[in-house]
Amino acid sequence: MVEIDEIVEFIREKIYKYHYKGAVIGISGGIDSAVTAKLTVLALGQEKVLGLLMPDRDSSKNTLKESKLVANSLGIGYKVMKLTWVLRFIGVYRLFPPAWLFPRKFQEKWTRKTMSAVSEDPFIDDLHNAGPEKMRKGFAYYRIKHRLRMILEYFYAERLRYAVVGCTNKTELVSGFFVKYGDDSSDIAPIAHLYKTQVYELAHALDIPEVIIHKSPSPDLMPGVTDEFALDMKYTDLDRILLKLEQNESLGNEDPKLVERVKKITNAAGYRSIKSVHL
Amino acid sequence: MVEIDEIVEFIREKIYKYHYKGAVIGISGGIDSAVTAKLTVLALGQEKVLGLLMPDRDSSKNTLKESKLVANSLGIGYKVMKLTWVLRFIGVYRLFPPAWLFPRKFQEKWTRKTMSAVSEDPFIDDLHNAGPEKMRKGFAYYRIKHRLRMILEYFYAERLRYAVVGCTNKTELVSGFFVKYGDDSSDIAPIAHLYKTQVYELAHALDIPEVIIHKSPSPDLMPGVTDEFALDMKYTDLDRILLKLEQNESLGNEDPKLVERVKKITNAAGYRSIKSVHL
Repeated sequence: MVEIDEIVEFIREKIYKYHYKGAVIGISGGIDSAVTAKLTVLALGQEKVLGLLMPDRDSSKNTLKESKLVANSLGIGYKVMKLTWVLRFIGVYRLFPPAWLFPRKFQEKWTRKTMSAVSEDPFIDDLHNAGPEKMRKGFAYYRIKHRLRMILEYFYAERLRYAVVGCTNKTELVSGFFVKYGDDSSDIAPIAHLYKTQVYELAHALDIPEVIIHKSPSPDLMPGVTDEFALDMKYTDLDRILLKLEQNESLGNEDPKLVERVKKITNAAGYRSIKSVHL
Repeated sequence: MVEIDEIVEFIREKIYKYHYKGAVIGISGGIDSAVTAKLTVLALGQEKVLGLLMPDRDSSKNTLKESKLVANSLGIGYKVMKLTWVLRFIGVYRLFPPAWLFPRKFQEKWTRKTMSAVSEDPFIDDLHNAGPEKMRKGFAYYRIKHRLRMILEYFYAERLRYAVVGCTNKTELVSGFFVKYGDDSSDIAPIAHLYKTQVYELAHALDIPEVIIHKSPSPDLMPGVTDEFALDMKYTDLDRILLKLEQNESLGNEDPKLVERVKKITNAAGYRSIKSVHL
């Protein structure tokens, strides 16, 4: 498959150009990091790829198991670093009630209900850093996890002179579905040109384990909040409309409400990466 | 002073444009954060600026005292968040011998000696992420501190809908004297257009406390490592030559060795912010 060869060559070229000795990748148990890790292994070999598994108290009970499955199926070395105590120390969990007192199902329901109750459109509020205090607490609560993962990836990478390989895809970048200075931050971003639905295609071609391909994509940051719940859209709809908008194709066959939603998201997404420099 | 009014207006405009309610600034006790904080106070008022003071075990014993002096002289609220335990928890201090066993003077000497012993040119190695393992351990050791400070600034800012105001200056940006996804990362960078020597001029005009202006600039990340020790150059030389290079002025009067040093730094600095995205 041409696409695979091209990405593999891209990774290899950048790693050697900047004299990195290998790559660190945060393995979440999701499809993006599984695909990215597999491409990196094809580029550099198993022994030059280190996986970091960084669950916290809110991670799904399957996260660690599935992350290990990914690492083991690739044959790469990995380190497990649970974030719970570091986050507790920083005071992150104090923002919300002690989750361990409640069963998971209840946590999931509570989180979704709270989000919907405090904001009419949680994701658009998120992109604007807006909404009432309870909502903003939620932003601080989930974003620091992505950022902490990023800085730990560098902490390991720098000692080994490895590159940090990022797993953000084009759908996330275009729709602002990432954390500024968190999962967007890396040395190499080899799947940044692929929409989520294209990542799925690649996953099949790359023999990613079925269980990873078939689970619901989730940022795994707050109980019960999957990608599609957060985006309030299906990836297939979002990607199809994003692609039509990108290629100036007719939107005649699309539900106008969905088109409006996508435009609202991409407009608001501009806020996400704002950096104003006085020059 | 025109320059001050212009920067103040820039801050005010960006804060209102993006609907931020105020600003978070990491106050280090150094001149850059003192000047940035003062400019932000002039733009938004004292009550809308929150200072974060984040020393760790390696900070100079004056850091906290001087940071408080800055915050108090500006009349802004501040929070002290000592990083020592979080860094210990992550395993950062395990990379180097337990510093508390030794007097500060010894730590300072040891760090400088170690850096010089393991690398002929520590700063150039740093820019390239190169050098032997002991050196690279040092990179991981100091960089995570800047990154942790950044993510804590966001942790406070997001709850309040405040912007994170960055304190990097032009000398740092041009010479790569910053941590990628650390002190370079913010929502607004109001002094990014000023060389360090220009920041000093501004500090006098802004009535920054004398003790802050007159101390040796230091990243305060490893004992005994000041800016000028790390850069292996004086700021006055570095800035003067950088400015001449920028404005294509004659370098005839300059020591060729210094010019060569500056060129070596700015060339290597290109590595610092590399992000390779496959598009």
